[in-house]
Amino acid sequence: MSRQKAYVASVGFTQVGDHWNKSLLDLAVEASRGALKGLGGRKVDQVIVGNMFSAVGASQEHLGALVTSALGLHGTPAFKVEAACASGSSAFNVGYNLVRSGAIGSALVVGVEKMRDLEPEEASQALAMAESAEYTQFVGATFAALNGLLARLYMEQEDVTRDELSAMPVLDHANAVTAAHAQFRKAIAPEVVSRSAMIADPLRLFDCAPVGDGAAATLIVNEDALSGSKGGRVEVLGGKIATNEFSVYEREDMLDFKATREAFRGAMAEAGLAPGKLSLVEVHDAFSVVGALSLEAMGFSERGHGSKDVKAGKYSRGGDLPINTFGGLKARGHPVGATGMYQIVEAFLQLTDQAGKNQVEGAKYAATQNIGGVDSTSAVHVFGRGS
Amino acid sequence: MSRQKAYVASVGFTQVGDHWNKSLLDLAVEASRGALKGLGGRKVDQVIVGNMFSAVGASQEHLGALVTSALGLHGTPAFKVEAACASGSSAFNVGYNLVRSGAIGSALVVGVEKMRDLEPEEASQALAMAESAEYTQFVGATFAALNGLLARLYMEQEDVTRDELSAMPVLDHANAVTAAHAQFRKAIAPEVVSRSAMIADPLRLFDCAPVGDGAAATLIVNEDALSGSKGGRVEVLGGKIATNEFSVYEREDMLDFKATREAFRGAMAEAGLAPGKLSLVEVHDAFSVVGALSLEAMGFSERGHGSKDVKAGKYSRGGDLPINTFGGLKARGHPVGATGMYQIVEAFLQLTDQAGKNQVEGAKYAATQNIGGVDSTSAVHVFGRGS
Repeated sequence: MSRQKAYVASVGFTQVGDHWNKSLLDLAVEASRGALKGLGGRKVDQVIVGNMFSAVGASQEHLGALVTSALGLHGTPAFKVEAACASGSSAFNVGYNLVRSGAIGSALVVGVEKMRDLEPEEASQALAMAESAEYTQFVGATFAALNGLLARLYMEQEDVTRDELSAMPVLDHANAVTAAHAQFRKAIAPEVVSRSAMIADPLRLFDCAPVGDGAAATLIVNEDALSGSKGGRVEVLGGKIATNEFSVYEREDMLDFKATREAFRGAMAEAGLAPGKLSLVEVHDAFSVVGALSLEAMGFSERGHGSKDVKAGKYSRGGDLPINTFGGLKARGHPVGATGMYQIVEAFLQLTDQAGKNQVEGAKYAATQNIGGVDSTSAVHVFGRGS
Repeated sequence: MSRQKAYVASVGFTQVGDHWNKSLLDLAVEASRGALKGLGGRKVDQVIVGNMFSAVGASQEHLGALVTSALGLHGTPAFKVEAACASGSSAFNVGYNLVRSGAIGSALVVGVEKMRDLEPEEASQALAMAESAEYTQFVGATFAALNGLLARLYMEQEDVTRDELSAMPVLDHANAVTAAHAQFRKAIAPEVVSRSAMIADPLRLFDCAPVGDGAAATLIVNEDALSGSKGGRVEVLGGKIATNEFSVYEREDMLDFKATREAFRGAMAEAGLAPGKLSLVEVHDAFSVVGALSLEAMGFSERGHGSKDVKAGKYSRGGDLPINTFGGLKARGHPVGATGMYQIVEAFLQLTDQAGKNQVEGAKYAATQNIGGVDSTSAVHVFGRGS
């Protein structure tokens, strides 16, 4: 392959939260228009929409052509990419690979999800579609229940305390206070987590990412298209999707997030970057335990030490390796099919010094890690400040 | 781009019809296993699943990782591609572009849909998700109703008779008689169409593709991977997705299938092939009128002459340009997210002389055309007999 350089030239996004007055399409269009501003009048070659459950949430499929037409870009090739909660970053991965391999010169990728129109039990059922309908759903396990089992195992096997587990939601909320697009901009104490309602023992309400609406978009371009662009200049250095044995109970070692491990390894190898070079990482902490296991799978923390290291401040703003710099899934929010794209947008803001009060000073390299299911799919991307 | 040659090395597929004893996953795995036989022991680089509505049909998303894990291929990157009824060929297009651009060496692409588990009104609602929820669905228009309006316009404006419109279902059923994997292997007379139950005036039951289950898969490889493969050798010469103004009523000329026109033009240009060279075309005739307008958009028939030319025998086996050689959407069947992949499988069978009694003698080049919505998305691929 005659590899081309691929860049994120511009981004667009909505606030995460309740958008009662905007439809799924409205949100996707709003974020896309922001990202298209970087195009400098050129034509975009491809539109890719990342989304998980527009079918059950909005009785809508065919988002590729729908969004493309609403943007006035009809004619342009378009489709939707889905990989449960990793839909956003999987869509990005397709766009990135098409640009870097030279198949196209530019791609608009937008991740969107509208969850708040669903009743809570409907949202729970929609999320459960990330797991096998024939086995996991059949026995009545919700997605939170599976992660609860995982959290219990993690705490028992690795001697993790309730307070250690609470450290990641606390970190997320602290970082979100100054993040304008975050769903919950309020700091919390560890006791807020440990005293919150029990959802799936031992996971409590504040261990779990919230339900919210949102859309986030990027314009990916090659060097040629970048020259005419009006946006920033963040290079996509590497990107990799990996899968795991589908359900957590099928795995020999349930605490080993192999998909994340492999996606991270592959993306860093493609980037030719040592993990120590990273200035920040956006981690998929749909549940506190998932964030901890992700940090371990990527090798930032030793086995069993993910939550402990978060509590010790290693991943806080000003720590060794800042994570979830705008609040992560717990506080920025987790509009499922959009989440991976929010992470990438946030990496872009950091690497173009547009992160405001959330800026990681001198940020040079950033990684994003986005999971579908319980690490059934994981997508990692690595970005570098444009030179 | 340093273009590599891309080949379909092998295919797998199930019969189209009622699969009461097989799940969505079972079907996808069965077709995939067939296609993977061509791999010759190598590792596949990417799995892509084409599917439209597993969410409402099987309460299942995340098909990429699910199918990949069920095949024992966990680790392999995977995701789902969706573009309504063009999901199958859109998934193929992603795999083709990743291989030909050199991003990967091989891709398993499988299209799957399970429709028969749905009640008729649920299936109708699921299909309507190809159209705008906020506008088209909101006013209560079914997908058949929209195509009925289009058929009425076509007949009035272009002086098309009932018998001319019936010619395509008749052709499809004639071709399906000897197609083992077809849903309806029975020839019909034009009167069977014109006397069948009215669905959406003037469209009758036999103008409409049936509801069915099925899965079809291909292994796409580059030249390097082909050398070790055990399958056939069909080159993918070109492929293009295009979109149109989303809904038919937004278009200045509703009878002009611009997405199909552009996708066909683009795919043929990429192939460097004159349309006259094609030995056969698999046409997306979800409704008789849609097949006719597709033939016109691709330039095989003059405006208003699509149905007339079908009736005159131009597209029959033994005619100028055989179409729908295994029965098309009406008789082979239309398991939505799998349909585009069935078309591609059929092109493969023709170009490797494995079409049995449905063989187009000396077939050298074939095209497939697959639509999502009413030409909102169209994907065309062009194939050549391997040399």
